[in-house]
Amino acid sequence: MHRTHTCGQLTLSQLNQQVTLSGWVQKSRDLGGTTFIDMRDRYGITQLVINSDDDETLRTKSRELGREFVIKVVGQVVERSNKNPKISTGDIEIRVSNLEILNPAKLPPFMIEDETDGGEELRMKYRYLDLRRNPVRNNLILRHKMAQEIRKYLDAQDFLEVETPVLIKSTPEGARDFVVPSRMNAGEFYALPQSPQTFKQLLMVSGFDRYFQIVKCFRDEDLRADRQPEFTQIDCEMAFIEQEDILNLFEGLTRHMFKTIKGLEFNDFPRMLYADAMRLYGSDKPDIRFGMEFVELKNNTLPKNQQPQTWKSENEFPVFANAQMVVGINAKACAHYTRKQLDELTDFVKRQQIGATGLIYMRHNDDGSIKSSVDKFYTELELKNWAIAFNSQPGDLLLIMAGQKDKVRKQLNELRLEMGNRLALRDKNKFAPLWVIDFPLLEWDEESERYHAMHHPFTSPKPEDIDMLDTNPGEVRANAYDLVINGTEIGGGSIRIHDKTLQSLMFKHLGFTPDEAQKQFGFLLEAFEYGAPPHGGIAFGFDRLVSIFAGLDSIRDVIAFPKNNSGRDVMIDSPSTIDEKQMKELSIKTVL
Amino acid sequence: MHRTHTCGQLTLSQLNQQVTLSGWVQKSRDLGGTTFIDMRDRYGITQLVINSDDDETLRTKSRELGREFVIKVVGQVVERSNKNPKISTGDIEIRVSNLEILNPAKLPPFMIEDETDGGEELRMKYRYLDLRRNPVRNNLILRHKMAQEIRKYLDAQDFLEVETPVLIKSTPEGARDFVVPSRMNAGEFYALPQSPQTFKQLLMVSGFDRYFQIVKCFRDEDLRADRQPEFTQIDCEMAFIEQEDILNLFEGLTRHMFKTIKGLEFNDFPRMLYADAMRLYGSDKPDIRFGMEFVELKNNTLPKNQQPQTWKSENEFPVFANAQMVVGINAKACAHYTRKQLDELTDFVKRQQIGATGLIYMRHNDDGSIKSSVDKFYTELELKNWAIAFNSQPGDLLLIMAGQKDKVRKQLNELRLEMGNRLALRDKNKFAPLWVIDFPLLEWDEESERYHAMHHPFTSPKPEDIDMLDTNPGEVRANAYDLVINGTEIGGGSIRIHDKTLQSLMFKHLGFTPDEAQKQFGFLLEAFEYGAPPHGGIAFGFDRLVSIFAGLDSIRDVIAFPKNNSGRDVMIDSPSTIDEKQMKELSIKTVL
Repeated sequence: MHRTHTCGQLTLSQLNQQVTLSGWVQKSRDLGGTTFIDMRDRYGITQLVINSDDDETLRTKSRELGREFVIKVVGQVVERSNKNPKISTGDIEIRVSNLEILNPAKLPPFMIEDETDGGEELRMKYRYLDLRRNPVRNNLILRHKMAQEIRKYLDAQDFLEVETPVLIKSTPEGARDFVVPSRMNAGEFYALPQSPQTFKQLLMVSGFDRYFQIVKCFRDEDLRADRQPEFTQIDCEMAFIEQEDILNLFEGLTRHMFKTIKGLEFNDFPRMLYADAMRLYGSDKPDIRFGMEFVELKNNTLPKNQQPQTWKSENEFPVFANAQMVVGINAKACAHYTRKQLDELTDFVKRQQIGATGLIYMRHNDDGSIKSSVDKFYTELELKNWAIAFNSQPGDLLLIMAGQKDKVRKQLNELRLEMGNRLALRDKNKFAPLWVIDFPLLEWDEESERYHAMHHPFTSPKPEDIDMLDTNPGEVRANAYDLVINGTEIGGGSIRIHDKTLQSLMFKHLGFTPDEAQKQFGFLLEAFEYGAPPHGGIAFGFDRLVSIFAGLDSIRDVIAFPKNNSGRDVMIDSPSTIDEKQMKELSIKTVL
Repeated sequence: MHRTHTCGQLTLSQLNQQVTLSGWVQKSRDLGGTTFIDMRDRYGITQLVINSDDDETLRTKSRELGREFVIKVVGQVVERSNKNPKISTGDIEIRVSNLEILNPAKLPPFMIEDETDGGEELRMKYRYLDLRRNPVRNNLILRHKMAQEIRKYLDAQDFLEVETPVLIKSTPEGARDFVVPSRMNAGEFYALPQSPQTFKQLLMVSGFDRYFQIVKCFRDEDLRADRQPEFTQIDCEMAFIEQEDILNLFEGLTRHMFKTIKGLEFNDFPRMLYADAMRLYGSDKPDIRFGMEFVELKNNTLPKNQQPQTWKSENEFPVFANAQMVVGINAKACAHYTRKQLDELTDFVKRQQIGATGLIYMRHNDDGSIKSSVDKFYTELELKNWAIAFNSQPGDLLLIMAGQKDKVRKQLNELRLEMGNRLALRDKNKFAPLWVIDFPLLEWDEESERYHAMHHPFTSPKPEDIDMLDTNPGEVRANAYDLVINGTEIGGGSIRIHDKTLQSLMFKHLGFTPDEAQKQFGFLLEAFEYGAPPHGGIAFGFDRLVSIFAGLDSIRDVIAFPKNNSGRDVMIDSPSTIDEKQMKELSIKTVL
């Protein structure tokens, strides 16, 4: 038997008991004859003591111990003279009578401490050591708890967890698939699912009524910090429902998670139209932990009578005069920003990733006077009118940008988030959930010069907008919605098409020939002819949800064995070459 | 709103209420003016009524309805005159006031009834219709419930569910891997996991202490009825434990499942040595719902003094004389078997899949007389001694086979199971769990002419047998165990090696060069040097466990979207060819 108790369990209730413990040496201190050893396992730390009057064998062995040695001890629970109230076992220590080294350990390449000295690459190569650190392990414990709670909640709501296949069929629509050559069907390939979309819809056709799955999905994309080639979704679908039912049910789930995991209660989540999110925040996933809404000074894309008052000077700033849109934010109480700080902000928006050409400011000084980088083009009255439009008070700073509508909104969104960071308005312990609704059905893709499905090809257009599919496809709204928390998209979904004719029409608008539609999605079109109910669903990014709950910036920290930005697992050194024999069996060869 | 209630919900408590229901038309009967419609959803069936005095539009629409139409009705809950006690809604019916066809349906290619007329192939092509049938849906509801219970139990036992990667590294040891070409690392491949074995061991090195995962695994094998290329395991690992701890904990899990799901209580599960299982049942997964243990009349593989008494006649039956082993079973009360029945059994064991050359019988007639197919070689006294060895009573039938030890045991195992079926001793509602322990560490592979790991290369040999690795490798026993229920292997596991030296020795004995071991498992060998605790685990085949609980013969019936024996999903028609462009991006081409 390796232990009677864990290292997080013993208190004064076990006083004088003989116990057996196993675990890792966290540290060992020799204080002139008496050796104190902190012994660690997943559950906590227990202090071991070996005294100078203990037998020589024991004392010798205790001196062999290094950090991370795996040991087993037998001893007696005694009361500590120096209690440590910070740990659950802080009232006691173990007078060791027997010590066994179960496995020695080489010196780890970085410190197994909450704050480690190991760099990212080293920690990934030795991920099994990194996982010994409390913060990393706690992320995964949180993930486990969240998965349990999600299942409990959905089970109580009559959802059935159904496993859908991992070896499915490649479909060129959407992101790039990972594919798997089939040995038994030479020349053919499976694909790994980007989501179980069509299967969950078929389960609705089957009458499963409420489906969920916490499931791995795969996308062969070029990776950014917050993307992984394999990721986990909470995937859900319901039949005989409307958008409102789904929003309510999954708001309920999210609220349940906040309550059980973080002890937080929420009122109804606010809802925002996609169009408003773009107008007020320049983003379909606004961080509403803080306001700083966009104010438009000029918007040429609107009908004349709806355009904002432009306070146009005789002598207008040429950049504004030529821009489709002039839009800004009010950085409250930032009028004191120095030239240097303003230059930093200008440099920020001019960075290649953001790509703005410049940034205009207007200081609303404490004394009420106004100072702007475009003073010479505008009268004081005109600038005062800006102040009114922005509802600025003495002490505020306006930051204004100009350009093509979509681009300048995107750029100003970045600046707004940056200002949120600078002004400490994005507290990780504050959570601001938000539904964004009425997404467009289609979005124009410059590269392929055609419309793509914004959500996916199975999303239902709003019935009242269907007529515009032919005349004004970009304006057609979908019954599609996203859940956003703190500026991060946590989940998205839609009401689906359940009618063959409408689905075929959608495929046509997405550039599928009837043959292509039949080849790739014939099974779904056919299923819709055998009694398909109205249905819809949602999928949450589980990795992101956990990372938000953990207050982390990257999903990598909530994944046990993540891959790096080249899709490589540096610990097991994968991907790797395979045998010629394997390739031959699979009827493939590499072309390098 | 599509419904106020489900089709399984309404009783007399809702009498006179106006309700809205949605679902499928199960059937529709027009009884001279009054139309009765059975409307179905996942939760049940509700009877709808449309009378001859209802308005014409409603009556016309009701006549359009065909089987599997999706409809929505508004109506009043009224008491039935003809109650149906077989269904939960049998006391009421709905007087329909409004009927809407949400989606019409073509006539399904087979009947959506518990007993369908659809063949296997048709049901698989239209799996979404097959899944509408109660027995199929109930299997998946059972699966959901079992997964929930397993998680609940393991969570309560401090196990953490940790997701391990699906894109891992190919290792030639074991079964064939599915591989995934990497686009970002041209010429390299990921593999899909046959099990998360090395990752769960690394989690033990990380101090996770107790891990589990209900997880998809993949094996590119030629498929039999009870195999699928992707299957689901309940995968578990524990640190600081011994075999006894694992057997107890997972016996606890199994008992919990029997109790919560089937309402069955069990005493301690029996345990059997692998050697005894092979000797008494010719199988490492004996079905102990019935006895019929093997009796050896001859066993040349034993030391002289331990060999059974052979009752050798002067005039011995030459097949027995030349055989390494003569072994049989006592089929109780089967002495009345006719010549035809005996011939059937002989044909059974001579089938190619079994491959025996013949079958000897001995009838112990009701009057005590004895009749055997080898009468002329043996005296009556000798045959009586057989009867004593088999403990046969008048009325019994002995069935005896001869040959090389391993082969004849395998053959007789098949015959024993066949007799169990014929004598109705294998009741699907009776459950006989059994631990088989002390498996051999290695097994000889004729084809490659070397030893293979019987469980896997990470299994720990019994310490007392390690010395035999060099002298008598086939005799080395492992700390390995299987859970068997009703003759089906449900789970298997072992205590693992946690020491680099012993693991390297194992790799050597399995024919790895040090370079190969380093290339494939270097990360694990290195991890063992940084403080690896003693650990072990087990994995249950979840599909099989569910199928046993469901009383089914095949795992296919408990998988929502299974593949056929060619690894093909005939519904979505996968695998399929992919674009040249995709292959080019992946730096591969097919060689046909």
